[in-house]
Amino acid sequence: MSDVLSFGNESFNNLAFYSGLVLCKTVLMGPLTSVFRIKNKVFSNPEDVARFAPGKSINTNDDMVERIRRCHQNDLENVVPFTLIGLFYVSAEPDPDIALRIFRIFAASRMLHTVAYLVPLPQPARAACYFAGVGATGLMAFFLFARLTFFK
Amino acid sequence: MSDVLSFGNESFNNLAFYSGLVLCKTVLMGPLTSVFRIKNKVFSNPEDVARFAPGKSINTNDDMVERIRRCHQNDLENVVPFTLIGLFYVSAEPDPDIALRIFRIFAASRMLHTVAYLVPLPQPARAACYFAGVGATGLMAFFLFARLTFFK
Amino acid sequence: MSDVLSFGNESFNNLAFYSGLVLCKTVLMGPLTSVFRIKNKVFSNPEDVARFAPGKSINTNDDMVERIRRCHQNDLENVVPFTLIGLFYVSAEPDPDIALRIFRIFAASRMLHTVAYLVPLPQPARAACYFAGVGATGLMAFFLFARLTFFK
Repeated sequence: MSDVLSFGNESFNNLAFYSGLVLCKTVLMGPLTSVFRIKNKVFSNPEDVARFAPGKSINTNDDMVERIRRCHQNDLENVVPFTLIGLFYVSAEPDPDIALRIFRIFAASRMLHTVAYLVPLPQPARAACYFAGVGATGLMAFFLFARLTFFK
Repeated sequence: MSDVLSFGNESFNNLAFYSGLVLCKTVLMGPLTSVFRIKNKVFSNPEDVARFAPGKSINTNDDMVERIRRCHQNDLENVVPFTLIGLFYVSAEPDPDIALRIFRIFAASRMLHTVAYLVPLPQPARAACYFAGVGATGLMAFFLFARLTFFK
Repeated sequence: MSDVLSFGNESFNNLAFYSGLVLCKTVLMGPLTSVFRIKNKVFSNPEDVARFAPGKSINTNDDMVERIRRCHQNDLENVVPFTLIGLFYVSAEPDPDIALRIFRIFAASRMLHTVAYLVPLPQPARAACYFAGVGATGLMAFFLFARLTFFK
């Protein structure tokens, strides 16, 4: 019998793949912010202005930069709890097919959320993606607490 | 002998329960923000205004929405490091009673922090909850580093 | 044979140490913010002003407080994904020497990033630290996906 938190557990394996994917997307929002900061010459610190846009002043109100930052923040608020609850959830050795479906719905919802935020698509596209992600996390939490309650 | 990161380890079990609880609370700050955005017609994106409050303008200064957002941010800053350090801490197989006490103090401090922030209660109520949470995380980190140092 | 996510796995051990270190630094940005809020009498909530700086008004624009907050935010955006991808990465039982080198580069880059942000050092010092950290996380993600692909 193999460990529950190892690649011997199919659901752990799938969590690593789908969480890894959305975590990488989340991290890449940082360099994307940098690209638009440099392109639009929009910086929050005097030392950044001095180096990358001499003569410009501090600007914390650029539409595109703030939009990427809000998208990044929404990722942190959702992708990180998903991964953490996901680790506890896969420890409970859930049905691998249900788990895989939940991970896929979450990963797809976050990818589409980013598209909806950055294009931007008309609402309620982004809201639907957001709530699909929250629902996927909620489902895992429900299974986790059900397991913890039976177990005790 | 069972794995350290599995439900065979009582402290992992308890971490899953208490971390799961505060992580769910953290995720639910998102929909709570949505409720107040819709109620107060306060949105940060033109596409949100167009769909949910036609004729209104962008507003990033609503008192209640910003209060919930600050509370949400404080959760991210504390609940996530707690859970991550907690995972390493339970791997070190701490005394289960001490671990349980730390988890309960943390979870209670974060629930009360939210109450203190949203009511709002007079200070230093919120500050006390905040520092209780930081202390719980610090205790785990202390035990973890003690273990890693002896182990090496 | 010991579990992959346990102190029997040398890379897990090292991740616990270096992640634990930068996570503690991240958590400590909170109390550092408090110190400068009290010193500069800069608060975001009416109940904070009432208790800690009676007669003052709300202020969300203090240079030093906002600088620490941006640094804290950058930590959350990078240290947390690093630790999560790191957990999946060490599950794949990477070469311990390569893993250790990646963890050290990441931890050093985040410590220097904080110094560069708070002193502040002239750019591109902070940008270089930031991208070193992103690179370390990217390397782990690369190894993880390579492993997951071969494994499937």
